[in-house]
This record gives sequence, structure tokens and C-alpha cells, in this order.
Amino acid sequence: MSAARLIALDWGTSSLRAYRLGSGGALLESRQRDWGILHLPDGGFDAALRGIAGDWMAAMPQAPLLACGMVGSAQGWVLARYVDTPADAAALAAGLQAIDLGDGRCLHIVPGVRRPGERPDVMRGEETQIVGALATEPALAARCRLLLPGTHSKWVQVQDGRIAAFRTFMTGELYATLKAHSILGRPAREAGAVADDAAFDRGVAAVQGAEPLAALLFSARALVLDGRLPAAHSLDYLSGLLIGDELRSALGDDADDADDRLPLALIGEPALGARYRRALAAFGRGELMQIDHAAPAGLWALATAADLLH
Amino acid sequence: MSAARLIALDWGTSSLRAYRLGSGGALLESRQRDWGILHLPDGGFDAALRGIAGDWMAAMPQAPLLACGMVGSAQGWVLARYVDTPADAAALAAGLQAIDLGDGRCLHIVPGVRRPGERPDVMRGEETQIVGALATEPALAARCRLLLPGTHSKWVQVQDGRIAAFRTFMTGELYATLKAHSILGRPAREAGAVADDAAFDRGVAAVQGAEPLAALLFSARALVLDGRLPAAHSLDYLSGLLIGDELRSALGDDADDADDRLPLALIGEPALGARYRRALAAFGRGELMQIDHAAPAGLWALATAADLLH
Repeated sequence: MSAARLIALDWGTSSLRAYRLGSGGALLESRQRDWGILHLPDGGFDAALRGIAGDWMAAMPQAPLLACGMVGSAQGWVLARYVDTPADAAALAAGLQAIDLGDGRCLHIVPGVRRPGERPDVMRGEETQIVGALATEPALAARCRLLLPGTHSKWVQVQDGRIAAFRTFMTGELYATLKAHSILGRPAREAGAVADDAAFDRGVAAVQGAEPLAALLFSARALVLDGRLPAAHSLDYLSGLLIGDELRSALGDDADDADDRLPLALIGEPALGARYRRALAAFGRGELMQIDHAAPAGLWALATAADLLH
Repeated sequence: MSAARLIALDWGTSSLRAYRLGSGGALLESRQRDWGILHLPDGGFDAALRGIAGDWMAAMPQAPLLACGMVGSAQGWVLARYVDTPADAAALAAGLQAIDLGDGRCLHIVPGVRRPGERPDVMRGEETQIVGALATEPALAARCRLLLPGTHSKWVQVQDGRIAAFRTFMTGELYATLKAHSILGRPAREAGAVADDAAFDRGVAAVQGAEPLAALLFSARALVLDGRLPAAHSLDYLSGLLIGDELRSALGDDADDADDRLPLALIGEPALGARYRRALAAFGRGELMQIDHAAPAGLWALATAADLLH
């Protein structure tokens, strides 16, 4: 354990991940707990930190601690205010907030990023993954588009090494909410869901026409009632509609633009990434880079930028 | 009570309405219970029928009984199979299903309507309101567009007195689901919601631009986080986004078409209707007819067409 240089945390709403990083940001060990900021153990934030990384902290009393994600939100441990776009690693490093852990150590928290404007947008946690992606694939830094699928998918425009702009699509939350609570989820809740790529593809194909999503959503029910879509496959059809609509919306607004030929890279969890790749292929955008371990890479890059690793 | 000619029921998922109708379909009395088909009292359908209309049935042993709505669905009392578009009152009357009540009487059930095709659509209950609207306003029968807002809003094209085509928008269910279960509803759940027309208008205005709904939905959260939308008004903003998107989708696909100048009439509950009128005005479609009591009028017209009133 002596090689550890940084104890890094990706602390979101529903889970907490900890990374022990060595020289050059090498990933030595990782751990995960269900201690998202809304599901903390008894003892709260401090207990969660010591529960997941207390042994690392004891063994490496000099290692700095850095966390990103919802831990820096208004519902988190301390509020780390947003940095406005365009934002780069230096601006994020300058915005770190420190929590005094009471034993001579601090936990540093990465701020989120805000896109100002008439309808602003925000991210928290993804900024660190973006920094990590650009550190991992420096060729992307000049200009690219990054896709971070998830509960709140982010589509990010990177220019000159900075987060230039971004948009949030609530695809993951919409799917989970409709699945659990709407009439669209009921057939599969009763029949049991069975994964079916063809049903997913059918949903993606449906949104590639002219019909807006609002007019298509109910087809996930009507097709089942009409005996043309098995109840067990209806959630994959719904997933295809929602992910397809996200892609149509996000890719559509620059279809006539040279921007459209920008390198596109995907960051995030492999299973969800595979689903997005499948849908992207249907839009003729199947060739794209996949970047893994972006969060620990970003935490390392930000610790370096903030000069925490002296 | 001797003037009663028909005992009519509008029996949906969440509520049961009963109407005592006299000569010419005059509405003599109406009642409502929370006995939707998913919330039946002990004793089930029969107990609900006798609970809401037993005294009418006893006093008028000759009056026929006719019901529309989800009572005729697979989860209802008896399955009344869909009639395909184009569908008129005669086709619906020919598709009535009868339930033997065991005392020499029948309850007749109106079938739903199905739009066949690659992505079919269905309605159940609204077909009766449409028949009632055309009976109430015969000038609409030649050609019009009807809007029935609700949990599953229907936009209906009427031609030559028939339901020619229709589309379902899940606006009401989407709003209720997001309000109760998503992060978009959380600020108002915690702060308490306060009605605010300006926030509703702002949501409607947002979807009148080029941005697709998928890219706008998260603004209901980001604006609150940014201090630019009070948490208490955020649900009205969300409602404006969703109803506005429904209008954009439903009105948009024939904007370059003479169809767009068809008479538009609104059927349904006044409070929700007022909200739709407000949004329609923002789309330059504020002048439209409102049709009330469409369900009892439709049940009367269908009882007449089926020759139940001899």
C-alpha cells in the first residue's frame, strides 16, 4: 500500500466508489459501497468515508483525499459551487472546497459545472470524468463531443481542452420512472421482463421517423394490447424509444454542421454503453471511442492541477 | 323518476359516473363514485353498479343500461373488442357487448376504437364522448379535430361523422409520474406547490423553440438550482413543457396543411380544459369550442343507434 499517492472518491447520489491511486495515477485498488449521499450509513459522511477508505487513510497518512460528485451539492457534505462554462481542469482545481476531517487532514471536493443562459444546465461528477477522458485520450482535447449516458445523460462539447457547452437528457430517470410507475411498465411488471435486442431496435427505429416522442410513447402500450409486442419485451422497446429520442435530439441539432463529424467518445458503464452504441449504430454513428475509468483518471488530473500531490 | 329512459355509465379506471337520462337524452341526474375498475368496492362490478344506480334500476325496471370506458377492457367486467377506424356510432352500436345481470336485465358495454397500422393506437371511453360531441354540435361532424385532454390525451380527426384517425399523448400520466416520482417533482414536493400561470406560460414558451422536449425537460430542475425558477412554481413550468410539447407535436404535423384550419373543439373537464386553452392561445389556436357533458350525450346517441330505447 506504500505506493498510494491519492485516495480518490466518486461520490454520487446512490453509490460511493473509492480508488487508491499510485504514481502517475495508476489504479491500484477500487472499492464500491451503496453509500450514496442519500443512503449514508449511521454516522453520515464521515462514517462512510472511514468505512470505505479508513484503512487506506491509516496506512498512508500523507495521501491527499479528493472527491467528486453529488457530495459537493447542496444535499452533500459541503457545497462546492459550480464553475461556469467554458471550464477546464485549472478552473475546476481552483474551485476545490476543503472539508476539515478533524485529524489534520482535509477532504477536497471538486465543484460542478454550470452552463449559464436563459435555460441553464448543470453537471456534478461528470466534469471529473471529462477531465479524465481528456487526460486519457489527449487527442480529443482539441475538439470532440463526449457522451456520458446515465440517469441524466450528458452530451458535452469539448474545445481547446475545455468543457465548452453541454446538455442534459433525463433518459435514464425517465425510463426508470416509467418502468416502475406508469402504465407502460405494467405489462412487463406483470409478465416479467425478458431482454430482447430486436424490441430495442424497433423502438430506436420508431423515433427515426418524423413522429415526435410524445406521439410515440403510447405505442409501447398499444402494441402490447394489439398483440404485436410481447409484454416481456415492452421495456426494451420503451428503452429504444427513449434512447433513440435522446440520440435524435442530440445529434439532430448539428446534422447540417461540420460539427457533426467531430470525434464522438463514450464514457461510462459498459452495459449501458453497449446499448447506446447499438442505438448510435442505427443512426450511422457506430464508430466511436469508449473511455473507461474516466473518474479516477480525472481525480488524478485534478489533484495534479491543484498541486495536492507535492 | 318516471321520466328516466336510460341509465348511462361512464366507467373508467379511477372513477364511475352514472347518469339518469330522460326523453331526448335530457340529463336528469348524475352521480360519481371512486369505484373505477381498479378500485371496486367489495362485491366487485355488480356491487358497484347497484351501489351507484340500484335505486334507479328498481324505480325504472324497463330502463336499459349502457356503459362506456375501461369497464369493457381486458381488466373490466367483460371484454368489448375494439372497432377499427374509421368508426361511427352505427359501428359502435353494432359492437355492444351485453352482460346478463341475472334479473332479466342486461348491462350493455360500448367497445373501444382501434387505429390499425404499424403502430396502432387505441381508445376506450373517448369514442363515446366523441359521438356525444358530434350529436351536440352536428356542424362538427363533416370535418373537425377534437382534443380530449387527460391522463392519455386524444387528438381525433373526424370526417363524415366518423372517427377517421387519432393519436394518444401520455401527457397527463407523464406529468403525474414525474411529479410524484422524479427529481423534477422533488423541489415542489418539499417546498409545496403554488399555482403560477406565468411559470406555466414559460414552460409553453420553451417548447415553442427548436429544442426537443428531451433536451428541455431537465431545465425544470436546472432553473430551480440556478435560482431562476421558484421550487413552488416548478410543477407549473413542467406542466407547460409537457402540454406545450403535446400541442407542438399534435399541431405541428399538419402546419403546412389546410387541415390546420379545421375547426378544433375541446372535450372534457373544465379545469384541465382551461389549461389547454391557455397553451393553445400561445400557439395562436385560442379560439375553439368547448363541449361539455359529452359522455352522457354519447351514451344516449349510442343507445338510440343500438335501438335500446324502444
